[in-house]
Amino acid sequence: MGRGLHVAVVGATGAVGQQMLKTLEDRNFELDKLTLLSSKRSAGTKLTFKGEEYTVEEARPESFEGVNIALFSAGGSVSQALAHEAVKRGAIVIDNTSAFRMDQNTPLVVPEVNEEDLHKHNGIIANPNCSTIQMVVALEPIRKAFGLNKIIVSTYQAVSGAGNEAVKELYGQTEAILNDKPFEPEIMPVKSDEKHYQIAFNAIPQIDKFQENGFTFEEMKMINETKKIMHMPELQVSATCVRLPIATGHSESVYIETDRDDVTAEDIKNLLKEAPGVVLQDDPAKQVYPMPADAVGKRDVFVGRVRKDLDRPNGFHLWIVSDNLLKGAAWNSVQIAESLKALNLV
Amino acid sequence: MGRGLHVAVVGATGAVGQQMLKTLEDRNFELDKLTLLSSKRSAGTKLTFKGEEYTVEEARPESFEGVNIALFSAGGSVSQALAHEAVKRGAIVIDNTSAFRMDQNTPLVVPEVNEEDLHKHNGIIANPNCSTIQMVVALEPIRKAFGLNKIIVSTYQAVSGAGNEAVKELYGQTEAILNDKPFEPEIMPVKSDEKHYQIAFNAIPQIDKFQENGFTFEEMKMINETKKIMHMPELQVSATCVRLPIATGHSESVYIETDRDDVTAEDIKNLLKEAPGVVLQDDPAKQVYPMPADAVGKRDVFVGRVRKDLDRPNGFHLWIVSDNLLKGAAWNSVQIAESLKALNLV
Repeated sequence: MGRGLHVAVVGATGAVGQQMLKTLEDRNFELDKLTLLSSKRSAGTKLTFKGEEYTVEEARPESFEGVNIALFSAGGSVSQALAHEAVKRGAIVIDNTSAFRMDQNTPLVVPEVNEEDLHKHNGIIANPNCSTIQMVVALEPIRKAFGLNKIIVSTYQAVSGAGNEAVKELYGQTEAILNDKPFEPEIMPVKSDEKHYQIAFNAIPQIDKFQENGFTFEEMKMINETKKIMHMPELQVSATCVRLPIATGHSESVYIETDRDDVTAEDIKNLLKEAPGVVLQDDPAKQVYPMPADAVGKRDVFVGRVRKDLDRPNGFHLWIVSDNLLKGAAWNSVQIAESLKALNLV
Repeated sequence: MGRGLHVAVVGATGAVGQQMLKTLEDRNFELDKLTLLSSKRSAGTKLTFKGEEYTVEEARPESFEGVNIALFSAGGSVSQALAHEAVKRGAIVIDNTSAFRMDQNTPLVVPEVNEEDLHKHNGIIANPNCSTIQMVVALEPIRKAFGLNKIIVSTYQAVSGAGNEAVKELYGQTEAILNDKPFEPEIMPVKSDEKHYQIAFNAIPQIDKFQENGFTFEEMKMINETKKIMHMPELQVSATCVRLPIATGHSESVYIETDRDDVTAEDIKNLLKEAPGVVLQDDPAKQVYPMPADAVGKRDVFVGRVRKDLDRPNGFHLWIVSDNLLKGAAWNSVQIAESLKALNLV
């Protein structure tokens, strides 16, 4: 058991927490001890891991005694309150909230892109936003080979990014509409915001709250996190983030401009065929392209519809799809834990 | 009854045809006689217009005897076969299919943008593609005031653009998934294409068939029609068109670059407040922005999320929503008929 670790999952009963457990199982992640933590409200819940039953406990500072790796996904306020407590007790925190992502001393890591940033951590490693992760996995090989100076992305995001209750609302509302029954939107687009709108059979151009500049916080996350992960403060990035009646699987329509203008769509497809974490699904003649319904439950980032812009020689369009709960959250967090082990950092 | 006309609706039983009848009613369009036509399959259907019952007849060359205006929306092959027959018999054809849109001698008209092109018609006037119409209505005032040189659009399109049977498939499939029953996709993304995919709770990045260049026909329609309507062959336009589990209402995430780089988002909002056919819904602080569920049944084009790009001084982002069956099809066709009357061209 020499390499076994004591792992804690904070937010174990949530949409991402449950996928973290499943991913730890699927990857056969070596651990000696597993501690499942949650808010007071969910404490007492029984969960099964590798056939064994665990009782979820309320997350408290002392919960982290002896923990080597703590995977946090219980909301920003929980991370704010407890991540440093975990670090104080010797744990490395892999945090799936936005609490520390833009902190200068916290590496923001997607292993396929900037695994080396793990060497500089101070106890906390931030897991980027779901919509950022899948985009940078697909774009990093292009950036490396041909340079990258502009990204314009429009997202097609699933409701599970807003948690289990958002999925429940989508299904319940859909059923109400199909049966001509009344319903009251309560969760989407942002539970803590003032107004709530129908998500079933609709499109809501708001994810997270609006900022002073007219962009939403989700959009600013994509913009700022992409620059940080790629170490390119000068990269031009803009985003429009839209919530759709899809349970799981984010899609992105991405336009990029490369530094070189002698690149072909074939060049980019050839790169992506070999890129780590990427599966190229691109054969228009056979109607092959990625779709969220196909991506659910898979750890890869799927890319298709790669084509050169009809006007700008350095412009390209791509369609990028991934399971927002896996590569967008749980899998990237577990993957960071695997990298820490591989690099002997834990 | 001097200004009354004999109007024929071809494809009267279809999703757009039914909205054409409703729009003629809503607008109190003056007509002396109404002839409802369809394919052989739908002939015999009874439809009500202004409280009176009409029997739909099979569309044939001789059906157009005495017709002044024929509104076609029964698919490209029907228009190919019968539009010239109607013109030969003295009718002006307003064609909602793609059959004649790019024909040099056929004006392609959105009244708010290029009503004057109606003067040059040779019997047939083409109604643009739904996703093109709503975009040019919103962008034309900006082009006029500040110049326009680039458009990058990603669409969020409803299934009713593919007809009533597509809506039926969406609802049926949704119900099957909610009840854990099996289903077989048969219509989406393109009925006549080889493969069919789940549309419920999914996103399909294919609308119409793929072209040699990797773009779909829908994408090429948006690109070519926009240039033609705006009389700007040099305008840079690119599009990614995506079908979503929404019954009615297309949305578009649009990035533009203006010629001038001293324009503010406020300038654009002020323009759009006054623009014909446009309703500005843009107040992020109050979570006000357009959504397809709100646009259904309305003739306007709704614009929101207007903001300046964070990097390029001449770059702007907009979110444009409209009822694809109304301004995107039926209403724009009837509006062309109204313009023909107002201009004494019929």
